[in-house]
Amino acid sequence: MPSTILQTRTPKRVTITLNRPQSRNALNRQMLRELCDAFQTLEADPDCSVVVLEGKAGFFCTGMDFEEFAADPAQAAVGAAEGELDSTYMTLLKAIAASSKVVVSVVAGQVLAGGVGLVAASDLVIATPPSTFGLPEALWGLLPACVTPFLIRRVGFHPAYKLALTTQNITAEEACRIGLVDAVQEAPEEILRRYLLRLSRLDTATIATLKSYFRAMWILDDRMERAAVEEINRLSRSPRVQDNIRNYQVHRKFPWEI
Amino acid sequence: MPSTILQTRTPKRVTITLNRPQSRNALNRQMLRELCDAFQTLEADPDCSVVVLEGKAGFFCTGMDFEEFAADPAQAAVGAAEGELDSTYMTLLKAIAASSKVVVSVVAGQVLAGGVGLVAASDLVIATPPSTFGLPEALWGLLPACVTPFLIRRVGFHPAYKLALTTQNITAEEACRIGLVDAVQEAPEEILRRYLLRLSRLDTATIATLKSYFRAMWILDDRMERAAVEEINRLSRSPRVQDNIRNYQVHRKFPWEI
Amino acid sequence: MPSTILQTRTPKRVTITLNRPQSRNALNRQMLRELCDAFQTLEADPDCSVVVLEGKAGFFCTGMDFEEFAADPAQAAVGAAEGELDSTYMTLLKAIAASSKVVVSVVAGQVLAGGVGLVAASDLVIATPPSTFGLPEALWGLLPACVTPFLIRRVGFHPAYKLALTTQNITAEEACRIGLVDAVQEAPEEILRRYLLRLSRLDTATIATLKSYFRAMWILDDRMERAAVEEINRLSRSPRVQDNIRNYQVHRKFPWEI
Repeated sequence: MPSTILQTRTPKRVTITLNRPQSRNALNRQMLRELCDAFQTLEADPDCSVVVLEGKAGFFCTGMDFEEFAADPAQAAVGAAEGELDSTYMTLLKAIAASSKVVVSVVAGQVLAGGVGLVAASDLVIATPPSTFGLPEALWGLLPACVTPFLIRRVGFHPAYKLALTTQNITAEEACRIGLVDAVQEAPEEILRRYLLRLSRLDTATIATLKSYFRAMWILDDRMERAAVEEINRLSRSPRVQDNIRNYQVHRKFPWEI
Repeated sequence: MPSTILQTRTPKRVTITLNRPQSRNALNRQMLRELCDAFQTLEADPDCSVVVLEGKAGFFCTGMDFEEFAADPAQAAVGAAEGELDSTYMTLLKAIAASSKVVVSVVAGQVLAGGVGLVAASDLVIATPPSTFGLPEALWGLLPACVTPFLIRRVGFHPAYKLALTTQNITAEEACRIGLVDAVQEAPEEILRRYLLRLSRLDTATIATLKSYFRAMWILDDRMERAAVEEINRLSRSPRVQDNIRNYQVHRKFPWEI
Repeated sequence: MPSTILQTRTPKRVTITLNRPQSRNALNRQMLRELCDAFQTLEADPDCSVVVLEGKAGFFCTGMDFEEFAADPAQAAVGAAEGELDSTYMTLLKAIAASSKVVVSVVAGQVLAGGVGLVAASDLVIATPPSTFGLPEALWGLLPACVTPFLIRRVGFHPAYKLALTTQNITAEEACRIGLVDAVQEAPEEILRRYLLRLSRLDTATIATLKSYFRAMWILDDRMERAAVEEINRLSRSPRVQDNIRNYQVHRKFPWEI
């Protein structure tokens, strides 16, 4: 099975490219595992101080893979019961947020659902002007359960809640205004280089200490992360949610059209 | 006694209009009870998915009714001791914040004190450009005790604190900048219709789950709400506060003029 | 030893001017003690309702005094072990944040490291347009440990984290956008006078109650403050940090140049 991600290196910097363009860079189990493995491996790599996360072909990441979920909801449900799918996603968010590398998401295109969590957990986010960000989960009877604590931490309670409630995409400009994005740039490479120049002066031990210290000064903790995994497992096992997603995959019918 | 609120319906939407224009839509006990009853009744109404909250005649809501408070401070103090006045207000804020309906405040005019709490507890807020928002409580020796946790949740700590400390009104534009208001519009109906179109795709069970899940991911909890009620009861029983308000009602003298 | 601060009075207002221009208003032990004493004395002063904090000669405050730290790192480490240096700084931040006076920082110039904490703990902040704000601690292997909980409270998690991670200065305009500064003004005196007019209507008992009530409605508590002091003590005793600062003081070499 070919890898779902690409990795390239320049001195000090590793770029991870999400590479499932045929699925609009949806997160399937393989990609989640490969991303977790990549972050774990990089942790031991002294030559890397910055990890750039990006997507292919107009999509950054569009969240959970509906095809995988619909093809075998029972298995997905069991997977979830065993904590595989969703705890892998939470493990990934935690790996990004606790990494001793600075993780910079470079967004050029659509970001949906779980993709918003990758962005929210990143240290810095640069987006091109046409990029969009949205949380459509509630349309399916789901919640952005794992995304929420990281999103609240980055943008505050109400902007996070509003994204989840309205299910409407926002522009890169709006995402920058609420703090989900740090810079909107046609050519992200330029601002990225400026960040790298500055960040290369920090040693990785200090970065890791900084992250864990700021975590201790905020409300996002292990208990909240467990509650998030339990909630997404509970919801993804719900027959109504499974029907909603299967109907869409098979008949292209949205829940509110039925 | 005629009702202090009006209710009108269009498909899926119930509009509640605060209707005490002679008192600038101040919250007296009757209005608090009627609002609580209205939200409770609507909870069981499957045809309603959005509740619009609005005020009459240039006032959204101007907070606690001073006339009622000054006319019988002993009774007000006893009422507070029994938790009637203020726990009814807190019950209302919680009903709005936990409702399985999307609550949209449409503000056209002045919002003061307890009125700011109604806005802060709402899911979405649209305001006309001349609307203003202020927390004058500290001028009377009071605090916006019940408002505070909901306001902090919506706009963050410092903007909430600054409103309470400076006691100065802010414009709709400024309220939008800090996140108290979601959209500033001359004609709120247009943006309201756009929200409704989108929100009608969510079922009420998902809305209720979303609200309770986001609550679990934030610091506003039962303990904080109880502390808020205790604080406002304590302050409203203070002789100094009672004198301040009675002096104003009887002699039109502000505390700092005495 | 001449005082490191100046105090001047006008009716209702005491202005404290940080006055170590030769050290760019760095915080040495004497200044920390004198500031703590000043706030404690003012607490008992019924004629003062507003304290203005300002710096001399183009610097508001540039954080810990490196000269003092480098001259005797052993003593500094012991001082820290006994909690002297850093707990005095935390005591100062708490005195500002809990004062029954309204503390207004008027910034005209550079604000670095611990200086940002003074600003973050203040009730209101006015800055001239050329002022800048930055947290360079991580460049030295340190963290803005005591600053962080006050900064998060004022601007939210991510803007605080980003300042600490990027170690880059931001302008007054940007500081205002994230909420670290309340107003950017060429002539701060004018807006200061407007604030004073309004604030003089509050009595100090109400101000103190307001501050302690808002504290109870947020996450910054004694436990977090103790954790902050422990962290800065731990880091300042680290040989690597001591070497970094001594190398700079003696050889003008930054850690990343060695």
